[in-house]
Amino acid sequence: MSVKDDIPAIFLDKISPKGLETIQKCKEFVEDYCLPADKLYLGQMGEGAARWEKTPEITEKLKAKAKELGLWNMFLSKHYTEGPGFTNLEYGLMAEYLGRSFVAPEATNTQAPDTGNMEILAKYGNPYHKERWLKPLLDGKIRSAFLMTEKGTSSSNALNISCTATENVEGNYVLNGVKWFASGAGDPRCDVWLVMCKTDDNNKAIYRNHSVLVLDAKKALASGKAKLIRPLTVFGFDDAPHGHMEVQFNGYEIPKEDMPNAILAAEGRGFEIIQSRLGPGRIHHCMRLIGAGEFALLRTIQRSNERIIFNKPMNKRETFINSLAQHKIDIQKCRLLVLNAAHKIDISNAKSAMRDIAIAKIETPRTIIRIIDWCIQMFGAQGVSQDTELARMYAHARTLRIADGPDEAHLNQLGRGESKKFPLVDKFFERQQQRFVEVSKL
Amino acid sequence: MSVKDDIPAIFLDKISPKGLETIQKCKEFVEDYCLPADKLYLGQMGEGAARWEKTPEITEKLKAKAKELGLWNMFLSKHYTEGPGFTNLEYGLMAEYLGRSFVAPEATNTQAPDTGNMEILAKYGNPYHKERWLKPLLDGKIRSAFLMTEKGTSSSNALNISCTATENVEGNYVLNGVKWFASGAGDPRCDVWLVMCKTDDNNKAIYRNHSVLVLDAKKALASGKAKLIRPLTVFGFDDAPHGHMEVQFNGYEIPKEDMPNAILAAEGRGFEIIQSRLGPGRIHHCMRLIGAGEFALLRTIQRSNERIIFNKPMNKRETFINSLAQHKIDIQKCRLLVLNAAHKIDISNAKSAMRDIAIAKIETPRTIIRIIDWCIQMFGAQGVSQDTELARMYAHARTLRIADGPDEAHLNQLGRGESKKFPLVDKFFERQQQRFVEVSKL
Amino acid sequence: MSVKDDIPAIFLDKISPKGLETIQKCKEFVEDYCLPADKLYLGQMGEGAARWEKTPEITEKLKAKAKELGLWNMFLSKHYTEGPGFTNLEYGLMAEYLGRSFVAPEATNTQAPDTGNMEILAKYGNPYHKERWLKPLLDGKIRSAFLMTEKGTSSSNALNISCTATENVEGNYVLNGVKWFASGAGDPRCDVWLVMCKTDDNNKAIYRNHSVLVLDAKKALASGKAKLIRPLTVFGFDDAPHGHMEVQFNGYEIPKEDMPNAILAAEGRGFEIIQSRLGPGRIHHCMRLIGAGEFALLRTIQRSNERIIFNKPMNKRETFINSLAQHKIDIQKCRLLVLNAAHKIDISNAKSAMRDIAIAKIETPRTIIRIIDWCIQMFGAQGVSQDTELARMYAHARTLRIADGPDEAHLNQLGRGESKKFPLVDKFFERQQQRFVEVSKL
Amino acid sequence: MSVKDDIPAIFLDKISPKGLETIQKCKEFVEDYCLPADKLYLGQMGEGAARWEKTPEITEKLKAKAKELGLWNMFLSKHYTEGPGFTNLEYGLMAEYLGRSFVAPEATNTQAPDTGNMEILAKYGNPYHKERWLKPLLDGKIRSAFLMTEKGTSSSNALNISCTATENVEGNYVLNGVKWFASGAGDPRCDVWLVMCKTDDNNKAIYRNHSVLVLDAKKALASGKAKLIRPLTVFGFDDAPHGHMEVQFNGYEIPKEDMPNAILAAEGRGFEIIQSRLGPGRIHHCMRLIGAGEFALLRTIQRSNERIIFNKPMNKRETFINSLAQHKIDIQKCRLLVLNAAHKIDISNAKSAMRDIAIAKIETPRTIIRIIDWCIQMFGAQGVSQDTELARMYAHARTLRIADGPDEAHLNQLGRGESKKFPLVDKFFERQQQRFVEVSKL
Repeated sequence: MSVKDDIPAIFLDKISPKGLETIQKCKEFVEDYCLPADKLYLGQMGEGAARWEKTPEITEKLKAKAKELGLWNMFLSKHYTEGPGFTNLEYGLMAEYLGRSFVAPEATNTQAPDTGNMEILAKYGNPYHKERWLKPLLDGKIRSAFLMTEKGTSSSNALNISCTATENVEGNYVLNGVKWFASGAGDPRCDVWLVMCKTDDNNKAIYRNHSVLVLDAKKALASGKAKLIRPLTVFGFDDAPHGHMEVQFNGYEIPKEDMPNAILAAEGRGFEIIQSRLGPGRIHHCMRLIGAGEFALLRTIQRSNERIIFNKPMNKRETFINSLAQHKIDIQKCRLLVLNAAHKIDISNAKSAMRDIAIAKIETPRTIIRIIDWCIQMFGAQGVSQDTELARMYAHARTLRIADGPDEAHLNQLGRGESKKFPLVDKFFERQQQRFVEVSKL
Repeated sequence: MSVKDDIPAIFLDKISPKGLETIQKCKEFVEDYCLPADKLYLGQMGEGAARWEKTPEITEKLKAKAKELGLWNMFLSKHYTEGPGFTNLEYGLMAEYLGRSFVAPEATNTQAPDTGNMEILAKYGNPYHKERWLKPLLDGKIRSAFLMTEKGTSSSNALNISCTATENVEGNYVLNGVKWFASGAGDPRCDVWLVMCKTDDNNKAIYRNHSVLVLDAKKALASGKAKLIRPLTVFGFDDAPHGHMEVQFNGYEIPKEDMPNAILAAEGRGFEIIQSRLGPGRIHHCMRLIGAGEFALLRTIQRSNERIIFNKPMNKRETFINSLAQHKIDIQKCRLLVLNAAHKIDISNAKSAMRDIAIAKIETPRTIIRIIDWCIQMFGAQGVSQDTELARMYAHARTLRIADGPDEAHLNQLGRGESKKFPLVDKFFERQQQRFVEVSKL
Repeated sequence: MSVKDDIPAIFLDKISPKGLETIQKCKEFVEDYCLPADKLYLGQMGEGAARWEKTPEITEKLKAKAKELGLWNMFLSKHYTEGPGFTNLEYGLMAEYLGRSFVAPEATNTQAPDTGNMEILAKYGNPYHKERWLKPLLDGKIRSAFLMTEKGTSSSNALNISCTATENVEGNYVLNGVKWFASGAGDPRCDVWLVMCKTDDNNKAIYRNHSVLVLDAKKALASGKAKLIRPLTVFGFDDAPHGHMEVQFNGYEIPKEDMPNAILAAEGRGFEIIQSRLGPGRIHHCMRLIGAGEFALLRTIQRSNERIIFNKPMNKRETFINSLAQHKIDIQKCRLLVLNAAHKIDISNAKSAMRDIAIAKIETPRTIIRIIDWCIQMFGAQGVSQDTELARMYAHARTLRIADGPDEAHLNQLGRGESKKFPLVDKFFERQQQRFVEVSKL
Repeated sequence: MSVKDDIPAIFLDKISPKGLETIQKCKEFVEDYCLPADKLYLGQMGEGAARWEKTPEITEKLKAKAKELGLWNMFLSKHYTEGPGFTNLEYGLMAEYLGRSFVAPEATNTQAPDTGNMEILAKYGNPYHKERWLKPLLDGKIRSAFLMTEKGTSSSNALNISCTATENVEGNYVLNGVKWFASGAGDPRCDVWLVMCKTDDNNKAIYRNHSVLVLDAKKALASGKAKLIRPLTVFGFDDAPHGHMEVQFNGYEIPKEDMPNAILAAEGRGFEIIQSRLGPGRIHHCMRLIGAGEFALLRTIQRSNERIIFNKPMNKRETFINSLAQHKIDIQKCRLLVLNAAHKIDISNAKSAMRDIAIAKIETPRTIIRIIDWCIQMFGAQGVSQDTELARMYAHARTLRIADGPDEAHLNQLGRGESKKFPLVDKFFERQQQRFVEVSKL
């Protein structure tokens, strides 16, 4: 089946032949390699204390295959010379297929949080950053983590970040504080940490007090002054393949001479960097979720044909049928919202597309959560158990109503924007009244 | 403000310069003429028994103005030589603006049910039909009604139509039955009725038993054997400007020699005709509703700035702000669904776009109803009263969850389509299992 | 069928034998007289300009019958010597049956707004008020209106009331201002107005600036300085039998010597009076709504048996069946909430039951609206038309999400109450931590 | 604070002094011992392979304390001479407090599935069953499991049970089949299994083909022909303290002479037994869930006071406040529904209360799920992690929309009951029409 049948009409003429071909290859790679590999992956993960000590072997085999097929780093859009040059729209359509499988994103080197990290290293990194960290990341040789969220502060307002990097008398920088939900930090291959911290004590304009540090993770851990405290769970899962860690800095010192390469761009540019990191990443998350939602529905359609409930197969039951239709509609709504936002980034930039990105980010996770929850219900006990992907998918999707700002914060920001238009609206109605006088005389 | 700011990014490059210019003109015509005229219109309607005896004078004045501006018959898409040649997408964007106002559709000769009637007369009419009925309709000289719905039968299944046109011994056709919710039939300018009825007593294939008759309304009424029984109300409103009538045929006879011009296309083609009538009409309805929803929000934003609730203006209240954001999201979702369907009609045809049209038709009315209901709540007592457009808008929007098939019927049809894909889905998972064996060996 | 089957188990032993007998009589009176009379009533109402000139004849006939059956003034609870002595719980169960019919409340002299007016006249009135107004109201000889709501101010905060009654130099009181949604003021039998207005210009404590005036409506209208401006509609309906009027006071003067009888209780006690008026009235409204909801479901069950949709009766369709079940559950929830609140008033008073009353008032209207809306959908076009009670019921129910304070205001008040408990909650968790130490040592 | 403040008004006079005193003691025991012990419990659980090998030590300490306080076996209602003699209503109110804590049910010997097992052993057991199994269960010395659910069959229809116990030529019974979600079967103290299986091959009336076997669990496992295959997870959790096991019978033989004590009541009475088991158990589950929901809200109120979002504490934010109010309303609705059902069981029996129990069972889990989900959202990342009880609570609550029949099955059964009343409804409206004639003549 051609992927063209899955693409909404309005996008068809916006996809290049190479884009279309690659979307098709993604679909096939996912179906032929990644989905079958998902079960292997879970079996190859370490258990208990060994959980974070090794990486399932299948991963590297899939990566080799993907590279061979030219399915590598597709997330790096046209703006980056390092990437294959797809539009956000094209990659969005690929991400939908990748999102069906657990391992597909890493297999194609398009997994969070590395994608965002590669983007900012490409955009803000100096030659050292690019050689030392970006290159092996692009090659899939190492992994990275972004240390931003802190326990006890609201992540929706980055000004709350309180982890500090303070210059001491010798001119070295000293890190103190605790980060958590540091995705990817548990992976044994994670070599570099990007750490958002406060480098200035409110002496500057409020948005210039934070910086992004680029740290050698292995070295930091070896110092004993940076520690992986514990993995955090998500509804009892480890949210693999990402994993989320709590990381503690306890006076970890960066020598003066290392500072130029330990700070991204420049001191005080932390906000600018994290802002730029968020836009396309949200689109990627949304499209992968849509893929997950579609896959959950496929599983459920399969089951509905086998499952007999009081002498009638589930797929002949009207409530099942109508709910299925509603879920397909809801997925389609999200797909249009997300792809429209992706296209807007393509024809302008992430900043102009902010409103559209916010809409996509608000709507998609909760829609997909609702859909997966229905699928779980259709599977009964099996749905909550380890015997389907559903509960794991649910848990992951649930985190995305929280990550990168909770729904409520985005809704509020969007609403304030709309509400502020009232002077224009007032003028509109005032003019109406003037026109009423004119029109009455017609 | 340019209409370009209102158009979702993905559609921008699909609109011709002339299309864009006309959308802009629509917006301005609605704001400068139609919205101010809405209040005049309601004041000029007849009351009580006189309600259906005259048409508000302002209507013809607006029609003249619209013609002058070139805003006329925009609904007739490229496929029709009689129209101005816009795509369904372009007209959809115009319809959004037209839908903000009560009188704008009629002012631009794009009002239901005349639009659908003109489309089928253009497509299926013989030269007589075109000269006698289509031409004056296109000129806005007369109006028309479509008599389809019958009391006591489910309109979602046209096979239920039981109004009969039977050949008698003289070879004349005799009509018997009662139609209701015949929109536009109350208008004194309504000269032609298109009547769906059963012309064959199940002798043919089930879908060949019905025909669409084309009747001279004034002549039929003069005969005394066709009667306007009563106007039907919608939540206490007359659902102006359409109006809905109950019409009774009591042995109304069509002479043998008149039959060629009294039947559209040919006997037994009723189904084919009504099927073709529905697609674009649903898109029009949806886009007008979206316009109505946006207008209701504008009214509410205006009020929210003035309304002080416990010492705080409504537009500073978080629940107001977040709800407003949600409603803007929901409108945007519908807009993308509807315009995507319109575009699909443009690049293929209504039949291929059936699924997309159904999705738009299911989602839009209930979304807009929810939005208007919220606006009513924000207006309090004023919202349910005659002092805003809201209650009237609500009542009209509410009919569209029923007209052209209730939500439930569309959902069910859509769901059955999805559910039937299970053999493909089964094959998909079967293949997965084969691949699992292969991938395990990698 | 005995009404005992309709009463939730927990209330059964709280109803006196006389109460139970009267509930049963209410049910039978409604079924045997009121429901059949509803259609007559609508036919006997005046139309257009004559709408508010006469009262349908059937009303007085029903009132005579109800009196004969002892079904009269049941709303006046035990606290009032003037009433038959039922508890709020008992009357609540009666009101559920009365609410099924349009005319039943007035037939039994339990119609709003007269009920609330009688309550406050009984509680606060002097001998003149009782003889002149309360007695004929109790006898069903006259009707009354409560003039509270004002256009452009938020009724949820009575402090906003800006209609003034100012003492002039001669010591007379002069009324100025506009009231609207004055229910019952359009009835030709309406002889007395209770008017909430501002009698003091903020000289006193903020809650002592308003008073309730008791005015002779006919005299006021005769003066020419009080006018019925227009009836207000509710979704195009007149919201009969109540009706809502806009009333203007334009310097209407009350002579000094009339003041003792023109003020209820005393100057400055307006707030106290309206507060006391609201509690039981909300319970009445809710129970009548529940009755309306049940009746709408009965109509729908009837139809579902006759209605064939694609060869299967509606009542064999799973979506219909499951929705019906959900609606029955939702009604039962409301019934328990409302009756629990009624009982709480009975065993303490309206003030202690405030929280429970608020919960009932928030939940019931929106639940019933949702149910009636579903019934409308199940009826299709007929549901929005005048051919069933549904649209009219819907419109009335919709006003009750606004009247007596919109949902949002009640929710907010309730939520602030809960939220303020945090010091207790903090203490609770603090204690937990101390206990953890102890329990660890077990 | 007295528990009287938490009890809805209508139930107050239905609680005996001893009942009230015990409810209060439950509250205090939960607050003083169980809640502080919850954290200990999780820390004392075995990990990985050792997970099901031991029981946290704190459990037995709490059990001793509870016995000392007289908080033991409260679930065994008046009908059982073995219990303390509370009504279902009284125990329901206790269960609400017990449900706040993870360990409280087991601490008071009121944990599922033992409660239901004890009930049926008390009701159907012979002297051997009572002495051998019921007595130590009542004493909290051993635990039990109920093996009912089977993979791949719909549990909502017990006729699907396909695990067989067939008489072989020697007259012994041989068990074959796989059970899963056998709650409690993983506990090392689990000594007895009650197993629903098919003992007759459709020779009898359809509801007489199944029986409940009573097996010595340790003996069965020792035989090697019954195996604990694996624990099942619930959203990644082990759903402790219950735990759910997959259990396989592979020709496990019960000697002829053991059969009298290996079958409960008699062969063929399986259905009767499981039916009787469900009623009160559902009420227990619901009340515990309500307690969990209230506890989640307490946690959230605590947090809302500390959490600052954009310079404003969460508990001053309107959306938080209004949502909190809504959740409190929703909990109250469920509480009334459940307690009303409990009372109905008390004054009649579980069978008469079936409809009320179904309503409670449908509404409560999904309400509480929604509430906990909101609490999770209010906690952000912490909410999905192991650092609060919320994710664990969510997972457990989610299973209860599936266990004992999914929502959909209950809704459907309820709806069919309502829908079947149409002949009565038809008669009702027919009578209306006759009365219309009469009333018109009044």
